[in-house]
Amino acid sequence: MATEQITLYSSKACPFCQRVELAISEAGANINRYEIDLSNKPDWYASKISSSGKVPSLAYGGPKVSPDLPSPESTKIAESLILLEFVADLYPDAHLLPGAPIERAQVRFFIDAVSTKVLPAYAGFVMRGEPKEKLFGVLEDAQALLSPAGFAVGNSWTIADAAIAPFLGRLDLMLGNDVGKFEEGVGRAAHAEIFEGDRFARLQKYYKDLTGRKSWKATFDGEYILDNSRARFARAA
Amino acid sequence: MATEQITLYSSKACPFCQRVELAISEAGANINRYEIDLSNKPDWYASKISSSGKVPSLAYGGPKVSPDLPSPESTKIAESLILLEFVADLYPDAHLLPGAPIERAQVRFFIDAVSTKVLPAYAGFVMRGEPKEKLFGVLEDAQALLSPAGFAVGNSWTIADAAIAPFLGRLDLMLGNDVGKFEEGVGRAAHAEIFEGDRFARLQKYYKDLTGRKSWKATFDGEYILDNSRARFARAA
Repeated sequence: MATEQITLYSSKACPFCQRVELAISEAGANINRYEIDLSNKPDWYASKISSSGKVPSLAYGGPKVSPDLPSPESTKIAESLILLEFVADLYPDAHLLPGAPIERAQVRFFIDAVSTKVLPAYAGFVMRGEPKEKLFGVLEDAQALLSPAGFAVGNSWTIADAAIAPFLGRLDLMLGNDVGKFEEGVGRAAHAEIFEGDRFARLQKYYKDLTGRKSWKATFDGEYILDNSRARFARAA
Repeated sequence: MATEQITLYSSKACPFCQRVELAISEAGANINRYEIDLSNKPDWYASKISSSGKVPSLAYGGPKVSPDLPSPESTKIAESLILLEFVADLYPDAHLLPGAPIERAQVRFFIDAVSTKVLPAYAGFVMRGEPKEKLFGVLEDAQALLSPAGFAVGNSWTIADAAIAPFLGRLDLMLGNDVGKFEEGVGRAAHAEIFEGDRFARLQKYYKDLTGRKSWKATFDGEYILDNSRARFARAA
């Protein structure tokens, strides 16, 4: 399997992309990566990789070609959560999913909670300026799901951690710099509560464990994301 | 693993439950099944099995107890798609998921299309009386995803088939009996187009293959579902 060509079409700005890059990094896999500029996608991208133009997308197999000349013979896979399972399947020795069925179910339950609860609340607060209470509530629920001292599920890093980490990182970065669709000072105040207050002590330790890993440093370009976000959420002077 | 106690809390009326029952039947697994009356749930259900009161839910492990006296020591798992993966993991010899990572990704892509496209269009037409075009469009897209002659992915039954089958069965049953939130005759006309017209020939063959299986017969009680649905969608005389 590992001899097939694999190319990930990704964007540093995109948290869904970082999920997949984290898993690939944790697997120690050596694949091709091609940066897609989301504001100026190459014209071959929609016709040859993703008809919806979405990132992340992955091209698997087929002849070894240049990433900007993708072959019709490779299989194209999209959707970050499908790609997380794919990376876990492709590199079983990396144990990105636990072996026991019940623990695998717990990983998927955590991922489902991220998709159906954390993400909507994150988007509500950061993108639409909704009150902080909903976000704080779901973060508290997510915190309660974390294993007592290790990662999301058990003591090893899994794709459950990949699913949430990019959003915690962006929350830290954006609120800490008061960037988002809220009044001045609101982001910074929320940041202090989430990343310093006692209410989220377990989440803070977890976040420190996640971001202390090599995989985090290799996949998170804070400066780039911040520049991108500042442009998007610029307040009227 | 197979020696742990497993109890599925299910309802004959619920398509999400049938997904899991199909997978269990295809695995040839012998588990406990407890029928939950959705209009009159037992009072222990929310406190001991599912705080949201949802079916399907599964209790795994712990002491062997009567299903109506669930033990706090069993692990509770909810969400039909998580349970499909869990059943596939628990009974690997049944091959409810293919072995190759790329085919596993194709199964999950099909399931994602069912969740994000087929289900909303199904609910739109049957539950809210929206025009048939959206439903026909997504059914055509789903049809295009099917393998040329076998099941959803390849020539073996997988959890991708479990994900869509209950909704095709209900579409056949309800439209064929003109039951749904539409004007009289609209359901029956749509039924003829979907289940007899040339446009959906591949889907019809697939549906016949699905419903010809033992697993279908063991898990689909058409009469019960129809009675239930008739009560729900009764038209003013």
